Amino acid sequence: MNRSATPRFPAFLHGGDYNPEQWLKYPEILEKDVELMREAKVNCVSLGIFSWAFLEPEEGVYDFAWMDRVIERLWSAGIHVDLATPSGARPAWLAEKYPEVLRVDDRFHRQHFGGRHNHCPSSPVYQEKVRAIDTALARRYAHHPAVILWHISNEFSGDCRCPLCQDRFRAWLQDRYGSLEALNDHWWTGFWSMRYTSWSQVEPPSHRGQNANPAIWVDWRRFSTWQCRSFIEMEKAALHAVNPDIPVTANLMHRFWDYDYFELAKPLDVVSWDSYPAWGMGDDLREASEHAMTHDLMRSLKDRPFLLMESTPSQVNWHDVNKLKKPGMHLLSSMLALGQGSQSVMYFQWRKGRGGAEMFHGAVVGHDGTADTRTFRQVRQVGDALERLAPLYGAEKAPARVCILYDWNNLWALDYAQMGRRGDMRYTETVNEHYRALWKLGVNMDFRDCESFADDGRYQLVIAPMLFMTRAGIEEKLRAFVARGGTLLMTAPAGTIGEDGLAHLGQTPHGLTDVLGIRALELDALTDTQENRLIWADGPHRLLRLCELIQAEGAQVLGTYGEDFYAGSPCLTRHDFGKGQAYYLAAQTEEAFLTALYRRLVESLAIPRALPGELPDGVAAQERGGAVFLQNYAPQARQAAVPGAWQDLLTGDVWQDRVELEPLGIRVLVRK
Amino acid sequence: MNRSATPRFPAFLHGGDYNPEQWLKYPEILEKDVELMREAKVNCVSLGIFSWAFLEPEEGVYDFAWMDRVIERLWSAGIHVDLATPSGARPAWLAEKYPEVLRVDDRFHRQHFGGRHNHCPSSPVYQEKVRAIDTALARRYAHHPAVILWHISNEFSGDCRCPLCQDRFRAWLQDRYGSLEALNDHWWTGFWSMRYTSWSQVEPPSHRGQNANPAIWVDWRRFSTWQCRSFIEMEKAALHAVNPDIPVTANLMHRFWDYDYFELAKPLDVVSWDSYPAWGMGDDLREASEHAMTHDLMRSLKDRPFLLMESTPSQVNWHDVNKLKKPGMHLLSSMLALGQGSQSVMYFQWRKGRGGAEMFHGAVVGHDGTADTRTFRQVRQVGDALERLAPLYGAEKAPARVCILYDWNNLWALDYAQMGRRGDMRYTETVNEHYRALWKLGVNMDFRDCESFADDGRYQLVIAPMLFMTRAGIEEKLRAFVARGGTLLMTAPAGTIGEDGLAHLGQTPHGLTDVLGIRALELDALTDTQENRLIWADGPHRLLRLCELIQAEGAQVLGTYGEDFYAGSPCLTRHDFGKGQAYYLAAQTEEAFLTALYRRLVESLAIPRALPGELPDGVAAQERGGAVFLQNYAPQARQAAVPGAWQDLLTGDVWQDRVELEPLGIRVLVRK
Amino acid sequence: MNRSATPRFPAFLHGGDYNPEQWLKYPEILEKDVELMREAKVNCVSLGIFSWAFLEPEEGVYDFAWMDRVIERLWSAGIHVDLATPSGARPAWLAEKYPEVLRVDDRFHRQHFGGRHNHCPSSPVYQEKVRAIDTALARRYAHHPAVILWHISNEFSGDCRCPLCQDRFRAWLQDRYGSLEALNDHWWTGFWSMRYTSWSQVEPPSHRGQNANPAIWVDWRRFSTWQCRSFIEMEKAALHAVNPDIPVTANLMHRFWDYDYFELAKPLDVVSWDSYPAWGMGDDLREASEHAMTHDLMRSLKDRPFLLMESTPSQVNWHDVNKLKKPGMHLLSSMLALGQGSQSVMYFQWRKGRGGAEMFHGAVVGHDGTADTRTFRQVRQVGDALERLAPLYGAEKAPARVCILYDWNNLWALDYAQMGRRGDMRYTETVNEHYRALWKLGVNMDFRDCESFADDGRYQLVIAPMLFMTRAGIEEKLRAFVARGGTLLMTAPAGTIGEDGLAHLGQTPHGLTDVLGIRALELDALTDTQENRLIWADGPHRLLRLCELIQAEGAQVLGTYGEDFYAGSPCLTRHDFGKGQAYYLAAQTEEAFLTALYRRLVESLAIPRALPGELPDGVAAQERGGAVFLQNYAPQARQAAVPGAWQDLLTGDVWQDRVELEPLGIRVLVRK
Repeated sequence: MNRSATPRFPAFLHGGDYNPEQWLKYPEILEKDVELMREAKVNCVSLGIFSWAFLEPEEGVYDFAWMDRVIERLWSAGIHVDLATPSGARPAWLAEKYPEVLRVDDRFHRQHFGGRHNHCPSSPVYQEKVRAIDTALARRYAHHPAVILWHISNEFSGDCRCPLCQDRFRAWLQDRYGSLEALNDHWWTGFWSMRYTSWSQVEPPSHRGQNANPAIWVDWRRFSTWQCRSFIEMEKAALHAVNPDIPVTANLMHRFWDYDYFELAKPLDVVSWDSYPAWGMGDDLREASEHAMTHDLMRSLKDRPFLLMESTPSQVNWHDVNKLKKPGMHLLSSMLALGQGSQSVMYFQWRKGRGGAEMFHGAVVGHDGTADTRTFRQVRQVGDALERLAPLYGAEKAPARVCILYDWNNLWALDYAQMGRRGDMRYTETVNEHYRALWKLGVNMDFRDCESFADDGRYQLVIAPMLFMTRAGIEEKLRAFVARGGTLLMTAPAGTIGEDGLAHLGQTPHGLTDVLGIRALELDALTDTQENRLIWADGPHRLLRLCELIQAEGAQVLGTYGEDFYAGSPCLTRHDFGKGQAYYLAAQTEEAFLTALYRRLVESLAIPRALPGELPDGVAAQERGGAVFLQNYAPQARQAAVPGAWQDLLTGDVWQDRVELEPLGIRVLVRK
Repeated sequence: MNRSATPRFPAFLHGGDYNPEQWLKYPEILEKDVELMREAKVNCVSLGIFSWAFLEPEEGVYDFAWMDRVIERLWSAGIHVDLATPSGARPAWLAEKYPEVLRVDDRFHRQHFGGRHNHCPSSPVYQEKVRAIDTALARRYAHHPAVILWHISNEFSGDCRCPLCQDRFRAWLQDRYGSLEALNDHWWTGFWSMRYTSWSQVEPPSHRGQNANPAIWVDWRRFSTWQCRSFIEMEKAALHAVNPDIPVTANLMHRFWDYDYFELAKPLDVVSWDSYPAWGMGDDLREASEHAMTHDLMRSLKDRPFLLMESTPSQVNWHDVNKLKKPGMHLLSSMLALGQGSQSVMYFQWRKGRGGAEMFHGAVVGHDGTADTRTFRQVRQVGDALERLAPLYGAEKAPARVCILYDWNNLWALDYAQMGRRGDMRYTETVNEHYRALWKLGVNMDFRDCESFADDGRYQLVIAPMLFMTRAGIEEKLRAFVARGGTLLMTAPAGTIGEDGLAHLGQTPHGLTDVLGIRALELDALTDTQENRLIWADGPHRLLRLCELIQAEGAQVLGTYGEDFYAGSPCLTRHDFGKGQAYYLAAQTEEAFLTALYRRLVESLAIPRALPGELPDGVAAQERGGAVFLQNYAPQARQAAVPGAWQDLLTGDVWQDRVELEPLGIRVLVRK
Repeated sequence: MNRSATPRFPAFLHGGDYNPEQWLKYPEILEKDVELMREAKVNCVSLGIFSWAFLEPEEGVYDFAWMDRVIERLWSAGIHVDLATPSGARPAWLAEKYPEVLRVDDRFHRQHFGGRHNHCPSSPVYQEKVRAIDTALARRYAHHPAVILWHISNEFSGDCRCPLCQDRFRAWLQDRYGSLEALNDHWWTGFWSMRYTSWSQVEPPSHRGQNANPAIWVDWRRFSTWQCRSFIEMEKAALHAVNPDIPVTANLMHRFWDYDYFELAKPLDVVSWDSYPAWGMGDDLREASEHAMTHDLMRSLKDRPFLLMESTPSQVNWHDVNKLKKPGMHLLSSMLALGQGSQSVMYFQWRKGRGGAEMFHGAVVGHDGTADTRTFRQVRQVGDALERLAPLYGAEKAPARVCILYDWNNLWALDYAQMGRRGDMRYTETVNEHYRALWKLGVNMDFRDCESFADDGRYQLVIAPMLFMTRAGIEEKLRAFVARGGTLLMTAPAGTIGEDGLAHLGQTPHGLTDVLGIRALELDALTDTQENRLIWADGPHRLLRLCELIQAEGAQVLGTYGEDFYAGSPCLTRHDFGKGQAYYLAAQTEEAFLTALYRRLVESLAIPRALPGELPDGVAAQERGGAVFLQNYAPQARQAAVPGAWQDLLTGDVWQDRVELEPLGIRVLVRK
């Protein structure tokens, strides 16, 4: 087991965001907090995320006394601290004195003070103020034994179009493209007479000017990623200048679109993220699969266990319809995270505030202030479970033999693409459909993007859904993978544009037509009420949304279209290339098809699974550190076949050949 | 009968908005107007609402000559005048010379000239100009015998975020909270590092800055109410400085959200409002109940008869689908108002203009200019009816034994709350569901807010739907009411936050758990396609939208949940407290349940009803001044049981034990 | 045949937008283009539409060398040039140096550089720069033998509210109304106290100020039309100063709302337009009828054959769901245009660019760069067809005996009207319903607006759907038409307002009550789920959306309402007036009624049809130059009765008495 990733963590972390600055006038509550934390088996809290106004009540005047007391009190109870830098929300005095720290929106209007996560990342003043307080925090606490982690800022998001950011964008472009001539070529400014003749003419894309060129938008997202990464690096440098031994993280978010997380993860020592499934909306297994996928994605960013930094102990308050977690779901969803590689179960938030936007967001402790609540009892149950699972602490998931390509650049390219089902290409949803089919089979998967993917012999199967934009030599890497004996599955549309957003000339999927043995001809789009059919060995399946017309050029046709003028033409193909084989799926399909397809592939490739047999409906299994996390998302009890003798680490129960699962039940099984 | 409320009114007012300034170049039409008014039995018109540009065509230069002629001509025909101050729409020259009178919107953009009801209420120049023209109008007309009422401005609405209003907001906050420290505490600015260190940092909430703190938004609504009330007081003072004997009103609107009407009503001598039901959309009884409720609410503001200031004689023009009133509906909806306590039936508008936004809004006289129209005949029919009902003039409704709490502060608090069904809490709709169940039974109800409610022995039953915010000592007042022997019914969520928006700490419903014998645990929200069931004596009923989990602590459980993990837990409870009893309904229900519940309560408490028996579907009855207004909103004829002998004041017909109602029929019955 | 309309055109034009400026660094592609054009039977391309940045790379420095080469190369291959002025999109240097050329939007915010078709039309600098480059282009190319047409700018649209445009608006109003007094009277500024006392107070209507007066909005549209027309005239003058022999066009768009095309067409020598049907969405016949109508409208603007300037050879990229054209549809929709009077089939675009917003818009040549595509083959098929149909070049459609009034002023008036189904009056849709009923019968129709309509003896039947605004003496012209023996059909609402937007006083339809023998009483609106029924000789039909109550005053009642309180009252009437007759239809109807009504009228008036018999479902026929274009929009094969012997010009096949049509089949038949 590799525990090096989280050197100073003592055990699975259990705790959450703690905001004592809201309660400084309620000393009895601060005192009660520690007592309740111990009762809830909390061993770590995230502190200081929104404390700037209290740490630096006026410019340059710091007040650490209250935080000193809080940390001492926590540490005296054995509770560790994940200490935050406060850059996620600036004090009012800072916005008032230096309006440049406020963002300019995508219609070029400067925002007023309010909200959070909305500073200008370019502002020298803001950077200076952040560095100063980070340095002061580090000097005071970076050697405190309670402090085991830095929590940089909070849920980074968004962008700014102020003059400072515009200048930085131009500088970034100069750096990227070298010359205005090259910029014009890559942005294809011959279209609509958009040729720039001076750098000063270049502006960020916006809804009030340059708004229609996809390449400019994608570059803006890359620039915004770079802005955010630079900001993290700036904060990390300030912290590590004082003590480089405390690892840093930044809490990322589920399916967050603004930045490329493969980039953001680079300066982080540990990846952490905030997971808020919407349970109870009708298909909990599907919801679980989406968060399971993000868990695996976060794990894959650094190929190591990660932290679940936020989750709700009961319900959220920002959905349109805020449902309660049913009994069992809190343990189940916490174990979902653990089974996927989390080193923690952390919450937003420890205690509900009396006011503010999130005063009704779920918390371990509610406004009643007691431990006598269903939520509190469920949190303590998770605390117990984490103790019982201590042997798994730091364990890796079972090695993945399957890799899915998920690429933020491609995500943006598809979302900005003017074609197909415009603005509704559903890249992430499609990736999740492929993921879900395999996850239900108990298969473990890694995620890579075009850059991080390497043909290092780990993988038997690589899946590249909708790889519309190819970059970082991915064509060559996939070619080599197949040639060596790997199995590749790609889906339409694939290999259409390059990294700069320019369409590939010649046949597509670019650079892979010989590997796949097909070429793409035309792309048809279907309305929500239209569908086609796939005719293949396994019987017909519904085809939805996008149907690409392809021509087999060497590939074996496994399935054909059943409707429309392209009925009979190929839809699913397989091609032997080198020692491997390459599948191409030309249309989007219903879930049942992917389930059937991957069942065949997993069997024929002998890809390892958490459990060998068929799992009942609603049940999923994942393996970590030799333990099988068997999860039941169905509202009914289920029984699963588990050949041999097993022990449930949570209860100590022993099961032989089969195991019972109550509704929303969880078993963590090891072979006896 | 208490006629003191409207001292100088001679009879039920019949008339409407009259805009001769649009027709000054059409003298034949002005002459024809008076002739047609007499034919339509009009006895009062609202004059001058949008006349400013004609009364003061250039700054400081007044022209009253045309208005002199109009008033003389009207008075010579015995028609009274409800004279308006023109502050609802400024002249173009005023906006051009003093741009400060134009509002700044919620994104901090100054509006251009146009529209109406959109002045900056803080502008000293605007106030000065309004005072000047109000004074001039009063000096000229306040002693004219035709003038019986002042109509201050028009349909006040909205708010302004200009620098002047921002300053006033800060001053208002200083006044309210005393210190910045207190402001920070009440607004819970410890959340998201929002602590203010200088008053200059405080800004109105907006969609471009401070946007997420519910307490700030609620205070902004209170401030806007205060701004509007101050403006009314300023205008009233100018008018009454000349002649304090003419009462003032301001025409309020149906379900208007911007201001607290309990506050706005304080400076008004008479409450009036504008009622525009959308008949013919599928459920006219429901539509009637919503306007009946607003009639009762307006009556309750000052606990006196009120005025229906605007209604349409035919159709409106600003709905998406503008339907005609079917034959009978005009009389029926006019009598609805009268039965609920109106002293008038007034219209917008007397005559359709040839241009402008409302040129196609229904009017007594259309573009054809004749009396030979269905609309005109229906208006005259109402004029006849008002004459026949003269004995009821000034009469009070039958004393209400039921009081419903409806509180604007609570409305705002629920609408801004981030929880439950966020942004879709439907407080007013829920109040109307309770109102409708009792209104269909012929029960008379008063409305109070937390402040105006007093346990003065009037009420047997107090209903407090969704009293999420408690304020003005309402907990103590309700406790005393029940202790004394009253019956209280509360629904979830209740007693959650205080007046400042801070969550109550400890058990909830705050201050009432012992009265109700329950405490609230958790709040579940249901999507539009989800439902639960209430199991109680009367059989199962559907539960919708919100289900609160509660724990009975002394209360008798009358009904339980039928579904989900909280099946079997209490949903409806009753608790004896002192000499009274307190009901708690933890979920939102279908209408049939409320109908059944209130039928039982009315019976057991022997609450008086307009008619004793069961009314057929679509029929409602209300009593005023001893007369029963029996209304049929069904598209079919109906028969109602009315024990004894009755005479219809409208037709003189006598009915024994039963009465026939044609579709959309109305009878005003007195015991013979 | 009248070929004078397009004097220098050699034949049906076949080609499209050609953008070599995007490919200047790809000389092999430019060379390949000409080769492929010849293969595709292209004989004309539109050049230079977005070339400004390449023709004038810096201010005052022109570079024509690349265009010289392109034109020479094209001409050497016999390909003609439709040469564009580049005013549709300015270079970045121009926007940077002269920000006044950028538009100010309807919230008074200046746009930034980006997009296209968004210059300020008032800017003297912009006009000067456009004149200069137009003059330079004309001097260089206006005498080149390849150049046969000027393509002024591109798809004009939108408006600007900058200070310059505001001044021009005021000047235009002064010119139109003469005095501020008259402006006030016509805009009915007595409403809402809006009287202007200085021209400086007058602003364009906007969503940030003057927003509710329909008359101001309609005048703003007229002004915007005048702005656009003036801009075209300015460009035309610059071009014709060099060589007046090259005709000018400007490519208009389908159902474009911003400008009155009857006005825009005046300075054009040839009308052209861009047609993008959304095939494959469920009802292709309906979609065809909408584009057939626009073809006829464009033809009617100058009463001459027109040009189809843009269409897609495959699919578009800017729909939400971008569907492929099914096999056959490209030829069919091209022939639709030809049958309706087009002199061309032109495409956007010749070749897909590698980047930019339209990189995936359908093109003759795709990113693969080959002729080996379905699209390319279909384009060549159209090229072949155009050659075979050469005898029809320049031919007029069969003379229309039916005229439909379609009036942009009326369109705006209805869309801005606050009444009925507000914002959803569906004028154009209603006109299309009437058009479609006749088009399916093979009847040829002209379009006129109130101004261009003349009772010159051409027409037997005039249809005026929803002529809400009457202007240009249309009442008198229609009266004379009927008196002379014509048949008029009008539908509700009719004759309600005059040209200035003021409601007509007195009975309506204004000026036509005696002709129609009815008068209008009230207008009822129906929701989407409500309907009424028409009872008439042909059986009941559904009535939808709008039902006007009318009174017959001399007219014969042909049909009555079947439902609601106005059941039994007239809905369809006929009145003999002079030698003619006038029908009035008071409600909106389902399609089947109009089909039945027009079948009767066509029969009784003996209006000529392309083919005598009943056409099967999905099939339409139109006659041009003696040839019948028989079109099958059904997804099934169809058989049509064609008495006599016919030859298909496309295939040479001979048919006797009946003709077979494959799905999406087309026959161009001449009598043998």
